[in-house]
Amino acid sequence: MARIVQKFGGTSVADIERIRNAAARVKHQIDAGNEVAVVVSAMAGVTNQLVEWTSRANRLHDAREYDVVVASGEQVTAGLMALTLQALGVEARSWLGWQIPIHTDGVHGKARIEAIETGEMVKRLASGQVAVVAGFQGLGPGGRITTLGRGGSDTSAVALAAALKAERCDIFTDVDGVYTTDPRIVAKARKLNKITYEEMLEMASQGAKVLQTRSVEMAMNHRVRVQVLSSFADLPGTLVVDEDEIVEQRIVSGIAYSRDEAKITVQRVADRPGVAAAIFGPLAENAINVDMIVQNISEDGHTDMTFTVGQSDLDRALAVLEKCRTQLGFGALKPDPDVVKISVIGVGMRSHAGVAQQMFQTLAERGINIQVISTSEIKVSVLIAAEYTELALRALHTAYGLDAPG
Amino acid sequence: MARIVQKFGGTSVADIERIRNAAARVKHQIDAGNEVAVVVSAMAGVTNQLVEWTSRANRLHDAREYDVVVASGEQVTAGLMALTLQALGVEARSWLGWQIPIHTDGVHGKARIEAIETGEMVKRLASGQVAVVAGFQGLGPGGRITTLGRGGSDTSAVALAAALKAERCDIFTDVDGVYTTDPRIVAKARKLNKITYEEMLEMASQGAKVLQTRSVEMAMNHRVRVQVLSSFADLPGTLVVDEDEIVEQRIVSGIAYSRDEAKITVQRVADRPGVAAAIFGPLAENAINVDMIVQNISEDGHTDMTFTVGQSDLDRALAVLEKCRTQLGFGALKPDPDVVKISVIGVGMRSHAGVAQQMFQTLAERGINIQVISTSEIKVSVLIAAEYTELALRALHTAYGLDAPG
Repeated sequence: MARIVQKFGGTSVADIERIRNAAARVKHQIDAGNEVAVVVSAMAGVTNQLVEWTSRANRLHDAREYDVVVASGEQVTAGLMALTLQALGVEARSWLGWQIPIHTDGVHGKARIEAIETGEMVKRLASGQVAVVAGFQGLGPGGRITTLGRGGSDTSAVALAAALKAERCDIFTDVDGVYTTDPRIVAKARKLNKITYEEMLEMASQGAKVLQTRSVEMAMNHRVRVQVLSSFADLPGTLVVDEDEIVEQRIVSGIAYSRDEAKITVQRVADRPGVAAAIFGPLAENAINVDMIVQNISEDGHTDMTFTVGQSDLDRALAVLEKCRTQLGFGALKPDPDVVKISVIGVGMRSHAGVAQQMFQTLAERGINIQVISTSEIKVSVLIAAEYTELALRALHTAYGLDAPG
Repeated sequence: MARIVQKFGGTSVADIERIRNAAARVKHQIDAGNEVAVVVSAMAGVTNQLVEWTSRANRLHDAREYDVVVASGEQVTAGLMALTLQALGVEARSWLGWQIPIHTDGVHGKARIEAIETGEMVKRLASGQVAVVAGFQGLGPGGRITTLGRGGSDTSAVALAAALKAERCDIFTDVDGVYTTDPRIVAKARKLNKITYEEMLEMASQGAKVLQTRSVEMAMNHRVRVQVLSSFADLPGTLVVDEDEIVEQRIVSGIAYSRDEAKITVQRVADRPGVAAAIFGPLAENAINVDMIVQNISEDGHTDMTFTVGQSDLDRALAVLEKCRTQLGFGALKPDPDVVKISVIGVGMRSHAGVAQQMFQTLAERGINIQVISTSEIKVSVLIAAEYTELALRALHTAYGLDAPG
């Protein structure tokens, strides 16, 4: 007997048929004698519709009201899942964020979970009742509904698994696990049986969309065993686990890419102490995240500063910088949205030199120019022109020996 | 300065454009210096979709989970209305049933409001903030979401108006008031400027769909001035008020009809004490409402019992009675769904004889057979074959002098 959390994403609960399919997976665990808490996303497409309505109602919306609207999607699925489980003869009840409650901070639209009260739920789980929890939502200060940001149901599931001390958190989605890279681009991509928290975190934050980054952070901090698997196939998925659980160490585990990057070059800015702060301070104040940064060698007391922001922040970033033009005294502002960030990830890099070198050489052999480089202990990322995405991914996948046999 | 409640039905908030139109009406009241609480329904069509999903998930659904699902529709509109008001420069926040809270009993799917805590809302209204309240929903025992039954947002609005001691409760809908009868059938139907609570109650419970019956009951009990008006036209609507506010008394105020009737005749049942209880007891136990009842003259110690139930209860009623066949010992069970109930309503009947007689005669002159009759102090209802609906309505409308001039 074990206590497990099962999370079903939007495509896994897209209609009543699929909810029934997901419910059968829950029943399977109940029949095996396990305690099950289910976390559900909104039915595929619903959140987009709700978000569109809020922006049509008010482009600069009050995030508290945005949360009221978008949280309704998970509420619907939670009720429908409870009903479907009951129809299969499984005892179940729905739990909304405010009913549990899942306490969050007050950052509406991007709230962080602070505490989950599980007392009543634990009692009911023990009696065999399935807890169907609406993902993505919580209860903020002042009794208002909060949401956790897009993909937040992953975080709901992992947080609940941690709070319930669950043995495992199964994330059901429309892919059957975590791949060495995107199989839609690289036909020889392989499914990983296991991946470490650290690698998964880099994969997620470097563009792999299979799990929300914050959910991986939380799994790592609370040592929650996460499994990513398909709700449409009866196959084992990918286990996200501690490094010491992985017997056969690889140097490189996966290659992620993100098209959601835009490059900005600030040309001929005075090279003096405080210039980086002068550029990035205003961006931070406007909640624009800067990712990769490179500063050129100085010439005549001037330098070029190049960095990346999210595609959706590009226009806003340019506007912020234009407003500081006289203060910063730069020459020109060069935006480039046609870039992609490619990241090679693996905990084996810690003990193996030459991973970055192999990346640079592989790309050079294909005539691909590297625009910006950034590295961490277990990752090397490069920014290249977007048109080389497929070529670079395939070449690197082969170069690091990740191709599936045959 | 006054405090008013404005309720917008599903067609009045069917899309973002219409929500904006409704919000403009709210702003108009705020600009005039009034305090406004807004009650919103789900966007037209949404509740039907949600109900359909619940029945596909589980035909015999758990009403607690049904409520979780269907209450989401009003939640969405409340958030969108708050956002839209903010976009018009009006301070506003949404309130869900559990946030106010609107306490109800635990009869999920048909809950009754027990108390509304208005302390915080009153403070915010006084500061000029519009309270946008999700209609149709409340907070039941155990912290579960309850709903008030179809059309329940009318009841939410009237109950809120009573709790807030509002000067008026405006019910915005897709018709511009209460008519002497359905203008889609009788072209000469007239809009009433005023109608008494008692008449409105009979109109609503006899089939006029403009207001939920329970909301009229509540308005009558708490003496809430209700106005029914169109959100699409700038015209005064119909005021539902005390009898003494209506100067010019009419004998008959309106004619309602309900196609949601089905007739059952239980033939050759033994005419002995307790037979009515034996028939209607099992129906009541199965929550089947019986409306009109007529018992024939006894012959050979046997009688026929004829009564009506709602169309949607017909199959279930027949099944319940079949199960009691041996115990009741009746001859045959004759169902007839092709009937309509026509009701003539007016407080003037109290002091004027001959209203029923005029009805019977008018129908007889058209060759329309009356199958069942029932009366109350201010109403005469008859059951006739459905095919005569239009003919009967037009004839009676003329006979009682209700036709619009010209």
